[in-house]
Amino acid sequence: MSAKLTEAALADLATRALAGLGLEAGDAADCARILVLGELMGLSTHGVGRIESYGERIDLGGIKARPAIRVERVAPAMARVDGDNGVGPLVGMRALEAAMALARETGVGAVFARASNHFGPVAPYSLIAAEAGFASIIGSNATTTIAPTGGREARLGNSPVGFCVPNPGGRPVILDMALSMVARAKIRNAARRGEAIPPTWATDRDGNPTTDPKAALDGFLLPIGGHKGYGLALIVDLFAGLLSGAAFLTRVSSWSENPEAPQDLGHFFLLIDASRLGPADWLAARMRDFAAILHDTPPADPAAPVLLPGEIELDRLDLHRRDGLALDPALLARLEALAARG
Amino acid sequence: MSAKLTEAALADLATRALAGLGLEAGDAADCARILVLGELMGLSTHGVGRIESYGERIDLGGIKARPAIRVERVAPAMARVDGDNGVGPLVGMRALEAAMALARETGVGAVFARASNHFGPVAPYSLIAAEAGFASIIGSNATTTIAPTGGREARLGNSPVGFCVPNPGGRPVILDMALSMVARAKIRNAARRGEAIPPTWATDRDGNPTTDPKAALDGFLLPIGGHKGYGLALIVDLFAGLLSGAAFLTRVSSWSENPEAPQDLGHFFLLIDASRLGPADWLAARMRDFAAILHDTPPADPAAPVLLPGEIELDRLDLHRRDGLALDPALLARLEALAARG
Repeated sequence: MSAKLTEAALADLATRALAGLGLEAGDAADCARILVLGELMGLSTHGVGRIESYGERIDLGGIKARPAIRVERVAPAMARVDGDNGVGPLVGMRALEAAMALARETGVGAVFARASNHFGPVAPYSLIAAEAGFASIIGSNATTTIAPTGGREARLGNSPVGFCVPNPGGRPVILDMALSMVARAKIRNAARRGEAIPPTWATDRDGNPTTDPKAALDGFLLPIGGHKGYGLALIVDLFAGLLSGAAFLTRVSSWSENPEAPQDLGHFFLLIDASRLGPADWLAARMRDFAAILHDTPPADPAAPVLLPGEIELDRLDLHRRDGLALDPALLARLEALAARG
Repeated sequence: MSAKLTEAALADLATRALAGLGLEAGDAADCARILVLGELMGLSTHGVGRIESYGERIDLGGIKARPAIRVERVAPAMARVDGDNGVGPLVGMRALEAAMALARETGVGAVFARASNHFGPVAPYSLIAAEAGFASIIGSNATTTIAPTGGREARLGNSPVGFCVPNPGGRPVILDMALSMVARAKIRNAARRGEAIPPTWATDRDGNPTTDPKAALDGFLLPIGGHKGYGLALIVDLFAGLLSGAAFLTRVSSWSENPEAPQDLGHFFLLIDASRLGPADWLAARMRDFAAILHDTPPADPAAPVLLPGEIELDRLDLHRRDGLALDPALLARLEALAARG
């Protein structure tokens, strides 16, 4: 059991590791902020461990450590960002900052980013925007893993999308999700245990729903709600990939198969300045009432009260900020090794 | 079999019926435009038949035939609309027009409407915006029919939400959906036929998933993807109801139980001027490539090729515009009777 790291210590470690990969100090700190928030929210598959995989691609020339990111304001409330193939969370932070600046000025900010890479979890961006008073819709496209409804070849990414409404003085509501029923890891776990899976999780390689986890691992993830989730995944790619000028669908290069090639991923950030709609105490009172109505729902299981999206993650964030976070010692050692390169 | 009506004849009939209910001529025509487009797209549950139910509530004093709708620009790219309890598609059209004007000027337009009513289907608004060059995210809240995940009381509406990306010279992609797995009518049909339903469609009244359609009709619709669909329905209500200043969740008055009371529904319209992101031929070429990648997916069933969202509705629109639409003779007669009031 390793000692627990404070948020500051974790941010320092992540920043030094990213600087070790060649990022400029300020860029490394901004990029670290997203991954550390993700880690503290318990989203460890999208946390500081990602620095290693980003590093592998930087070493192979697949990602630039020192990109020349360009922000082009194309309308009073809109900007395009060219990420110049930088590390995803760095491009994401520059796009988020641009969207916040636009929304502060015009009430709304829409930013479309191209030439980017895996930008980490969505929830940290949502939280940063919410703490500055902005509601948001944020998404990214991704390497293809989902077959269109009725198809038997992966043509869509399991694109992450997040929605958030701020709550002055209280907790924002943050919905950060991918559009598959479950993550692939859940199917791998079922296969390891020799258990059947529900037919709604995945198809076999012919595109037919299956309860056999092994057949599912050869097949495709199923989106939530059948054609509805397919439609949502497609819309996220239209906004994040097509409108931004990035690659989309099968034009996105696979990170795992071609780690040395730029992925040209795209993201979008739509921000709304909630303070233009009413004063802070008005919004806070409404958010309190909204949450209370849901929390007061009689539960199906008395031991499991109804929750709002983001509560689990924000609980973990509070806990880790108070008590620190125990990082896997092997990961800690590898991040220290990257930091020592710098 | 009644004779087929042309789009112009159907619009004229719907406009006269709405005028018969007391709407001003211009308002009636704008409102009719949404319902007629819905009817022509095959969304007949949200088509011209709604004029009758709107009329019942106008007659009871639950909706105002001649509202004083106010549009207040609260930021360069944002407006609030007070619908003054007018007919929903009229409030919706005024909000859409405001959003288009803002987006034309600043690249993005965000409009939040309150004091409204059932605004019809989303797809017609999406199509009107797309034909003017705008991508859109549009939603409304609704009377509660969905229990939160883990709850056993309806606290959320089956809120409709639509996403659309325009396609200069070609077909836009329009995703218009509610967040339940299925509509209640599908469960009623299963009950009538004495068939079991999948456990993913609905719960019994204790909040437990059921395969018995009768138990399901006493219970709650299940959202797509469990907690994910619950989260999405909640987000639509936060944007449409909470941020707009309208009622939300259980604060929304039920149209069927209290037809004489204002519902205070809310809507949101987020529009993006796609022409700011690139020229029309750039966008058209990318949309063509995007659709081709999906259409070319090997199908699981060779007789059922992969479709994009909105294709079925746009096919029906083309067909009905070409051949006319046969309205149910009884409905036609009732609409003529409303028109005769004017």
